[in-house]
Amino acid sequence: MKFEAPVAITEIAAFIGAELVGNDRLLATGINEIHKVTTGDISFVDFEKYYNASLQSAASIIIINKKVACPEGKALLVLEDPFSAYIKLVKKYRPFEPATKAISDTAVIGEGTVLQPNVFIGNHVRIGRNCLIHPNVTIYDHTIIGDNVIIHAGTVIGADAFYFKKRANREVMYDKMESCGRVIIEDDVEIGAGCTIDKGVSGDTIIGQGTKFDNMIHIGHGTVIGKNCLFAAQVGVGGKAHIEDNVILWGQVGISKDLTIGKGAIVMAQSGVPSSLKGGEAYFGSPAESARTKMKELNWIKRIPEIWDIIKKKQ
Amino acid sequence: MKFEAPVAITEIAAFIGAELVGNDRLLATGINEIHKVTTGDISFVDFEKYYNASLQSAASIIIINKKVACPEGKALLVLEDPFSAYIKLVKKYRPFEPATKAISDTAVIGEGTVLQPNVFIGNHVRIGRNCLIHPNVTIYDHTIIGDNVIIHAGTVIGADAFYFKKRANREVMYDKMESCGRVIIEDDVEIGAGCTIDKGVSGDTIIGQGTKFDNMIHIGHGTVIGKNCLFAAQVGVGGKAHIEDNVILWGQVGISKDLTIGKGAIVMAQSGVPSSLKGGEAYFGSPAESARTKMKELNWIKRIPEIWDIIKKKQ
Amino acid sequence: MKFEAPVAITEIAAFIGAELVGNDRLLATGINEIHKVTTGDISFVDFEKYYNASLQSAASIIIINKKVACPEGKALLVLEDPFSAYIKLVKKYRPFEPATKAISDTAVIGEGTVLQPNVFIGNHVRIGRNCLIHPNVTIYDHTIIGDNVIIHAGTVIGADAFYFKKRANREVMYDKMESCGRVIIEDDVEIGAGCTIDKGVSGDTIIGQGTKFDNMIHIGHGTVIGKNCLFAAQVGVGGKAHIEDNVILWGQVGISKDLTIGKGAIVMAQSGVPSSLKGGEAYFGSPAESARTKMKELNWIKRIPEIWDIIKKKQ
Repeated sequence: MKFEAPVAITEIAAFIGAELVGNDRLLATGINEIHKVTTGDISFVDFEKYYNASLQSAASIIIINKKVACPEGKALLVLEDPFSAYIKLVKKYRPFEPATKAISDTAVIGEGTVLQPNVFIGNHVRIGRNCLIHPNVTIYDHTIIGDNVIIHAGTVIGADAFYFKKRANREVMYDKMESCGRVIIEDDVEIGAGCTIDKGVSGDTIIGQGTKFDNMIHIGHGTVIGKNCLFAAQVGVGGKAHIEDNVILWGQVGISKDLTIGKGAIVMAQSGVPSSLKGGEAYFGSPAESARTKMKELNWIKRIPEIWDIIKKKQ
Repeated sequence: MKFEAPVAITEIAAFIGAELVGNDRLLATGINEIHKVTTGDISFVDFEKYYNASLQSAASIIIINKKVACPEGKALLVLEDPFSAYIKLVKKYRPFEPATKAISDTAVIGEGTVLQPNVFIGNHVRIGRNCLIHPNVTIYDHTIIGDNVIIHAGTVIGADAFYFKKRANREVMYDKMESCGRVIIEDDVEIGAGCTIDKGVSGDTIIGQGTKFDNMIHIGHGTVIGKNCLFAAQVGVGGKAHIEDNVILWGQVGISKDLTIGKGAIVMAQSGVPSSLKGGEAYFGSPAESARTKMKELNWIKRIPEIWDIIKKKQ
Repeated sequence: MKFEAPVAITEIAAFIGAELVGNDRLLATGINEIHKVTTGDISFVDFEKYYNASLQSAASIIIINKKVACPEGKALLVLEDPFSAYIKLVKKYRPFEPATKAISDTAVIGEGTVLQPNVFIGNHVRIGRNCLIHPNVTIYDHTIIGDNVIIHAGTVIGADAFYFKKRANREVMYDKMESCGRVIIEDDVEIGAGCTIDKGVSGDTIIGQGTKFDNMIHIGHGTVIGKNCLFAAQVGVGGKAHIEDNVILWGQVGISKDLTIGKGAIVMAQSGVPSSLKGGEAYFGSPAESARTKMKELNWIKRIPEIWDIIKKKQ
């Protein structure tokens, strides 16, 4: 997420109560997770094993829970609880604005777009031309939708990431990550009924041009889906996945988080995908593997009684 | 889908810009897919391997991409792109009518039926007597609902079929099939919360009398479900399936498209059904097979280490 | 469910047309299922094999279809169809009250709670402080929600139990159980978008403090979920399950009804759980077993061709 205008690092440090180490003249331009940061961004790290990745990332400002050596030109904001400090910044610079009406005055709706009754359109939403938004759809704040997009009834675009930090020894154990990312739906996408597409934590969840979703599809936070994909009903995709162009997922497929499904891959119904898959091939099973390999395996299983008979005859 | 009044074939030919071959006095009475056509219907075919099935079907008028021999008494409408011509007809004779209010004036609601707040009822919907439609339900245009039907909150009845035609070598690869079918829900049906039941492409999706759905059930376009079925939560059924009477599907079962589940079949939780099943039996697994066979197979798998030990001892 | 005030058993007997056997001075204080009854409750039994359990339960009054010996101090209400009599009582003492507005005047909403547009809040609902209810959420009558609860868009809280009684030889085969239980959501819970949490049949469905749900999660009637649980997207849990504290269910997991998942158990994605699991361990597969055992089994399956080669060499 980018700030509306750059903010002096000294102001940030004072606001979150951090010790400022390194370049105190920096201007912060946004907030981001480690895998999304660009120059000017603030990021945070609170596990020692991720220190190096964070310090060497493109982030200019790192909120950190130990006073380590600061890379040249960057700045550290040192305090005990970087997660909470990060949340405090998100709440300040991307505050939740309760709706005052079902379709926000700050939303921009393109020509030829039809909004059916009982639709909710949040603040700062942008919707292109010639879209059709069916009844009882919810579009959270800051969502961006292109032209010729169809969204069927009951679908929810832009709910919060499912992302919590565990705090040991507390009665209420999980702290909520506040999401400040968006959902971006490109031109010519169709989303079925009863789908849920979460916003990114700090970056964007993207549904690529020409992609078509059947009903009850769940897309996790920050996931990026390519162009001309087809997802059948009840598919679920975890957070920060990357689904390349022309991927086909059949019904009830589950895709884990933080992985890549290569261009043109086909995943057969009810398969579960725990890790990245190469493009151009068909997959099946839970855990999914090459469909050809899996089909052979299913045949081998059927032959166990035959194997048993052979070894028993020999005894 | 039937037209409100018959249309001269010459008018149809002129509208879609087709060459008319054969009987030019025909009156078209409706539009249908090949598996649903009756006399008077227009159908379309664009793959040579389906020409025969289409020409020999009950359809009186076939939109086709090659000038073949026309069966006696029928007519061909010849042009390059039958799919697009068919869509053009659907859009003309079953145009989408944007809602002007949450409950259409053209809807007919029976005596004793309760509509809770935030319900959407589209154009030309008919709902019988003593129904209870809970909040935030969406009922698309042309849906027909019988008597004593309960529909729980958030459910969507009549969204478009998930049906696209692939166009190679185009940036936006899929053309949308425009659905002109309906959903018909018979008497005494109960539909849980958060379900999605798609309309048929040209025919009807039917939920038979006395059938009961739990929450989050997806039913694809044109699927016909018999009487007194029970579907547990998160079941998904593909398009044009036929589920006969008294079928029980347990939670998270997935049923593929274009198949038949015989009367009284029981499919155990999380099973995946790729092809037709005979009635009166229990099934399990993904892909599903006889539950008894599958249970034996699971036991055989557990015995592989024992088999290994036996053959290792002999070496 | 407890009555607003105790009701004389003679009044109950007259209302349902039952023969009263035993203590005719009893005051009924509520209606409950056999696994939830306390002193003063009315319960029902219609299968001979459950007579003993019912007669020896804490229920003071048993609606029963045979004149058996009445336990000391209790009362029997004898008639032909206990199920229908029970339903008649539920309808009388917890009648469905159609909404007159989207947010009922009888609902109590705490300070600092934000209700976004298009939310439905039923009769007698209580919501605590500092909650955020996103658009198009439906909260059925009698639901109780604590403080600091977030509910994302499109979610449905308190729909009816999926519970029907089969009646042989009837055209409409299933009679609906009328639910008079509630949903109780404790403090600091977050519920994702598009979830459905059913009310209990007579008792309460409970989501424990600090528990967090991702999107499209289904929870069956009367299920009790502990504190600080995490459920990923598209999880389904059947009715009357007991999920203890700190349980983690990954995406698309299915949990059957009437079982217990022990404290701290972790169930991996797409697993299906047919019976109780001990706490503190990880599980995988459908049917689920110890993840370690299951992983070994998956490896053994891969070795079947090797086994085949060995026995074939020896022949």
